[in-house]
Amino acid sequence: MRLRKKPWIKDEIVKYDRLVVQDPKTYRGKWFNWIGQVKPIHVEFGTGKGNFITTLAEKYPDIYFFGVEAREEVLISAVRKAHEKELKNIAFLWLDVQNIEEIFGEQEIDRIYLNFSDPWPKTKHSKRRLTHSVFLQKYKLILKAGAEIHQKTDNEKLFEFSLNELSANGFHLKNITFDLHHSQFEDAKSVMTEYEQKFVQLGMKIFRLEAKNSE
Amino acid sequence: MRLRKKPWIKDEIVKYDRLVVQDPKTYRGKWFNWIGQVKPIHVEFGTGKGNFITTLAEKYPDIYFFGVEAREEVLISAVRKAHEKELKNIAFLWLDVQNIEEIFGEQEIDRIYLNFSDPWPKTKHSKRRLTHSVFLQKYKLILKAGAEIHQKTDNEKLFEFSLNELSANGFHLKNITFDLHHSQFEDAKSVMTEYEQKFVQLGMKIFRLEAKNSE
Repeated sequence: MRLRKKPWIKDEIVKYDRLVVQDPKTYRGKWFNWIGQVKPIHVEFGTGKGNFITTLAEKYPDIYFFGVEAREEVLISAVRKAHEKELKNIAFLWLDVQNIEEIFGEQEIDRIYLNFSDPWPKTKHSKRRLTHSVFLQKYKLILKAGAEIHQKTDNEKLFEFSLNELSANGFHLKNITFDLHHSQFEDAKSVMTEYEQKFVQLGMKIFRLEAKNSE
Repeated sequence: MRLRKKPWIKDEIVKYDRLVVQDPKTYRGKWFNWIGQVKPIHVEFGTGKGNFITTLAEKYPDIYFFGVEAREEVLISAVRKAHEKELKNIAFLWLDVQNIEEIFGEQEIDRIYLNFSDPWPKTKHSKRRLTHSVFLQKYKLILKAGAEIHQKTDNEKLFEFSLNELSANGFHLKNITFDLHHSQFEDAKSVMTEYEQKFVQLGMKIFRLEAKNSE
């Protein structure tokens, strides 16, 4: 539906053939073939306009980053950012997180970032939250042992839900803060999403946690 | 110091010789001798005026409750409540939690309640918080394997601190809520401390968690 409105977005996205993976399923379990070498892989689910992941990619050249985003109208901004910054250690996956285990193989991922995911406030939609057990079980498969999920959100209810779900699924919680930008976590403060920059300017609190996969 | 101001409190407390244990160290590891039989033991650290623990004791006759409180000016109210309710499954320990491992033996306790503990907001006082690692390591000794700590507080910073400390000390977090009195935890809502009743009337949020000792 959305594509029909702005077909030029799709045309533009597919032009960036080193930044947008066209046939991601074929790399499952062997992403080192895409990357060209073995590097730690960090993935952001719901990359949006890409400020967070492209900033990290600039900062950490020895890590390879994937931004996963289903909505092409924001993905295009992320891709353009990576192109303008001439980043070589990042690519985008234009797809939904729903079937992520078809894209990444077992224990292929070193870190997952979840930033300002849709809180889906209604209970009947709880299964769509990216920290629902259904998703966490998928993440457990693709994460290495001891690898981590880092989550930021401004939504208290989503944060409360995430703490419970992560703990119930055997993740070890740490570095929990209810107010990141008044905390001691300098690294986590310094890399922000577009949303986060606005929220912080408005004085809103950002919740953050780290959750370690069982060893 | 405080005793000199109101010496009659001490005189009254010691009169309740079945409700206030006079020589608690002698029962360490054999509290069934005090209780008269083997029962699960639930302990509240910082019992205050005792509404919470006496309400539980009325509700659960098959559990034995201890209320630990150092301040005699509030302890006296708790003792009177238990006396008026003619409770047989409760006693009070007039002491500081600091050396609790001298009072309870290894794996002697089935549950610990921490309600509205002093948040000690200054970092230099963090070791006084009842969920500091120093205390949690003591609790781990006296708690049975798989036994739980249940904490309530209105203080967000103490709650954040507690989540981190409990997780770091190997407790498994569950049933976390940032707003108990708008949650689905009906049992936990129904038994309130004196503070909590006031806070809830004022519309303040109560945080609550459960933390399970490793099996």
